[in-house]
Amino acid sequence: MALIVQKYGGTSVGTIDRIKSVAKRVERTRDEGHDVVVVLSAMSGETNRLLALAHDICAKPSARELDVLVTTGEQVTIALLSMALQSDGYEARSYTGAQVRILTDDSFGKARIQGIDAERIGTDLSKGRIVVVAGFQGVDGEGNITTLGRGGSDTSAVALAAALKADECQIYTDVDGVYTTDPRVVGSARRLDRITFEEMLEMASQGSKVLQIRSVEFAGKYNVPLRVLSSFEDGPGTLITVDEEEPMEQPVISGIAFNRDEAKITVRGVPDIPGAAYKILGPVGHANIEVDMIVQNVGADNTTDFTFTVHKNEMEKATEVLKNVAAELGAREVQSDASVAKVSMVGVGMRSHAGVAAKMFEILANEVINIQMISTSEIKISVVIEEKYLELAVRALHSGFELEKEPFESK
Amino acid sequence: MALIVQKYGGTSVGTIDRIKSVAKRVERTRDEGHDVVVVLSAMSGETNRLLALAHDICAKPSARELDVLVTTGEQVTIALLSMALQSDGYEARSYTGAQVRILTDDSFGKARIQGIDAERIGTDLSKGRIVVVAGFQGVDGEGNITTLGRGGSDTSAVALAAALKADECQIYTDVDGVYTTDPRVVGSARRLDRITFEEMLEMASQGSKVLQIRSVEFAGKYNVPLRVLSSFEDGPGTLITVDEEEPMEQPVISGIAFNRDEAKITVRGVPDIPGAAYKILGPVGHANIEVDMIVQNVGADNTTDFTFTVHKNEMEKATEVLKNVAAELGAREVQSDASVAKVSMVGVGMRSHAGVAAKMFEILANEVINIQMISTSEIKISVVIEEKYLELAVRALHSGFELEKEPFESK
Repeated sequence: MALIVQKYGGTSVGTIDRIKSVAKRVERTRDEGHDVVVVLSAMSGETNRLLALAHDICAKPSARELDVLVTTGEQVTIALLSMALQSDGYEARSYTGAQVRILTDDSFGKARIQGIDAERIGTDLSKGRIVVVAGFQGVDGEGNITTLGRGGSDTSAVALAAALKADECQIYTDVDGVYTTDPRVVGSARRLDRITFEEMLEMASQGSKVLQIRSVEFAGKYNVPLRVLSSFEDGPGTLITVDEEEPMEQPVISGIAFNRDEAKITVRGVPDIPGAAYKILGPVGHANIEVDMIVQNVGADNTTDFTFTVHKNEMEKATEVLKNVAAELGAREVQSDASVAKVSMVGVGMRSHAGVAAKMFEILANEVINIQMISTSEIKISVVIEEKYLELAVRALHSGFELEKEPFESK
Repeated sequence: MALIVQKYGGTSVGTIDRIKSVAKRVERTRDEGHDVVVVLSAMSGETNRLLALAHDICAKPSARELDVLVTTGEQVTIALLSMALQSDGYEARSYTGAQVRILTDDSFGKARIQGIDAERIGTDLSKGRIVVVAGFQGVDGEGNITTLGRGGSDTSAVALAAALKADECQIYTDVDGVYTTDPRVVGSARRLDRITFEEMLEMASQGSKVLQIRSVEFAGKYNVPLRVLSSFEDGPGTLITVDEEEPMEQPVISGIAFNRDEAKITVRGVPDIPGAAYKILGPVGHANIEVDMIVQNVGADNTTDFTFTVHKNEMEKATEVLKNVAAELGAREVQSDASVAKVSMVGVGMRSHAGVAAKMFEILANEVINIQMISTSEIKISVVIEEKYLELAVRALHSGFELEKEPFESK
C-alpha cells in the first residue's frame, strides 16, 4: 500500500462527465489499496470567466482581490469531485488551500509555498477517506487567500506529496508522458519511461510544456518521484526521478526541446571595454525583459558583437531600450531578428560522453542549416537557427541520435 | 460618525453594473464619515447554477460538499465589490465567512452562528478600510465551511452588526421598506417608518417576505437597529427597533400580512380523550411536516374536531399520514382543503386596545366573508378564510383600520 498524490488539470475536470471519469480513476487507485490525495485545478475556462468579470469591474483589479476571486474555481471542482466519489460509495472530503494551511508568502498572484500542515490530511487518510485539495491556492500568515501563479496546481501537488512523504506524485494531463521530442514534429518521437529531474528541468525551460518548471524544481528538491500520465487513456506515463547513476543504462540524449518564441538581438561594434555587457543587459533587466541565451565574441578592431535572445513579444521593447544604450556606448548598431528558433539537446549522459556537440553540429551541417548562436550547459546544448529550418533540424537530430530506439532493454 | 453594516442581496449584485452601483452607495455612506461593513449575497442565479452542477454529478450530494460548492458564490461578489471600491479610490478588503471566523455549528446547509471574531474587522475599520464580508457562510469548530440556510445573508449581517456593536444594520433589497400590507393587493398600502421587532416577526411569519425571520429574531435578541431599504432608489426605508413604549404614538395595527400557501386539514369526530392531540400531531411532526395554526373545539357527542394548517405542498402527505391515525383513534374522517388563505392583523398597539378582534370580525362580516379558523397572540389576530375572498378581506381591513393614514404626525 502506497500513498499517491494525483493531480488533474483544468482539461481533465473541464466538464461534469470528465469529473466523473476522474472519480473512476481515483477510485481504481483506491481499490488497489492505496491512500489517495487528489489535487485539482479549476474547470478549464472558469479562471478566464472570472478574470473577465474582474476586468469588467475595473482595468487594474488588486492582486489580493483577484486571488479571492479566482480561487473559487478550484473550490467548485473539489466539491464536485468529492460528491462524485461519495455517490460511488467512497468516503471523500474536500479542502481549500486555506483549510489544509498551504502556507505561502503574501505575494498575491505568485505566492511561494512555505509549509503545509499535513496533520489534517493524515487523519482523514487514516480513516480511509480520499482527500481532495484545491490546487493553485494557499493562505498567507495573516489568513489572506493567495494563489501560486501559473502552473500552481502542479506545485501544490508536489508540495503536498513532499509534506505527506507520498510514494509518488502523479500529474494527469492531456499527453501520456514526456517524449523524446514533440510528436507533432517528429512522428517517431518516443515516450520516455524515465527522465531525471535535471533533464526535465532543461526540457521544460527549453520549451517542452508538459510540466511547469517550478513543480519539477520542487519535486527535485524534495526528491518526490513525479509521474506524468494521461487522464484520458491508460498507460505508465513517464517517471521523473533522481539520476540514479547507472551509466551503463544511461542514454546519452534523452530528448530534443525547441522553442519558436524567442527573438535574437545583436548589438554590433561594442567597444571592448570592461562593463560593456552590464551596460547593455542592465537596462534590459530594468525594463523587466527576461533574457535567455547570451553570446559574446571578440571582433577584429577591439570591438565586440553582443547577442542575446528575448521573448518575441519583447523584441521591440528591448530594441527600443538598446538604441539609447548603443549610442552612449558608441556601438555601431542594434539589429533584431524574430525569425529564429532554438533547438536544445538534453541528456544527463552528455556529462560522460564527449563529442555530442560535434555530432549535433555535423548533423545540422549535413542539412546545410546555419548555426547562429550556441550555448551549452553540463546536460544541454542549445543552438539558434533560422526558424524555417526548425522542423528539419529536429527531425534530423532525432534520427541522427536514434532517439526513436529504446536506449537499452526495458526491464 | 457611526458604524453601519449594509447588506445587499443577490438581485442588488446581480450584474457587473449593479455591483458598481452598490459600490457608489457604499462610498456615499463612507463619504458621510461612517465606518462601513458590507455583507453580500451571491449574484442572483449563481447559487442555482452551482446547485445544478452538483445535481448533474449526483442525485443526493452531501451537505458538507454542497456548502463548499455554493459558498464560492459570495466569494466572487465580495472580490468584485472590493475591486470596484478600490478602483474608485477607496481602501477595501474582502473576507470569506471563514476568514472573519463566523463560527457556526456543523449543521451543513442550515448552520447556526455561535460567534464572530470582530477583531480583524475592527482593525481594518480603524485603518479607514471598507470591509466586505461574504454573507450566508461560516465555518465550524473544525474549520469546515458551512452555510446558514435560506436568508442566511441577512442573518450574517445582523450577527456582524451585533458583534461589532454597529449603530445600524441596513438591509438593501428590491423593495423600499415594510408596508402596511402588500401594495400589489392594496394600492393605498403605506410604507411604515418604523415597526417593532415583534411586529416584524409576526409580519414575516405570516407571509410578508421582506426579511427572513431568523435575522429579525437575531436583531431583536441583540437589539440591533435594523433598516430595510431599496438598493435601487433612495429613501429612508423602514426602521425596525425595540418597542419604545410610547403608547400615545403607538398605532393599534401596523400591518396586514397574508398567506396563500397554507392548506387546512380537519380530523372530524375525534374521541375527546387525553392525548388525542398528540396522537394526531405526533405522526405529522415525525413526517417532518410543519404545522402552523391549530384549533380544537369540543363537539356535541364527546367527540371533537381537530383542525390545523400545513403548507399546501404537504397537504397530501399529511392527509395520508392521518388516515391511519384517524382509524386507530376511531375518528370519523379526515378532510383537507387547499383553497384557503390566512389573513393576519399585526400590531403591538393591540395589547392596550381592546376590541381589535371584534372590529376585524365585523369588517369581514360586512363583506359576508366566513371565518373558518381564528388564532390570536398578544400582537396578532389571524383568520383562515376561503382563498377567493383574500384580496377583498385585506382591502376591507386595510381601509377599515385606516392604515393608509399616518397614525400620528411624523416627527
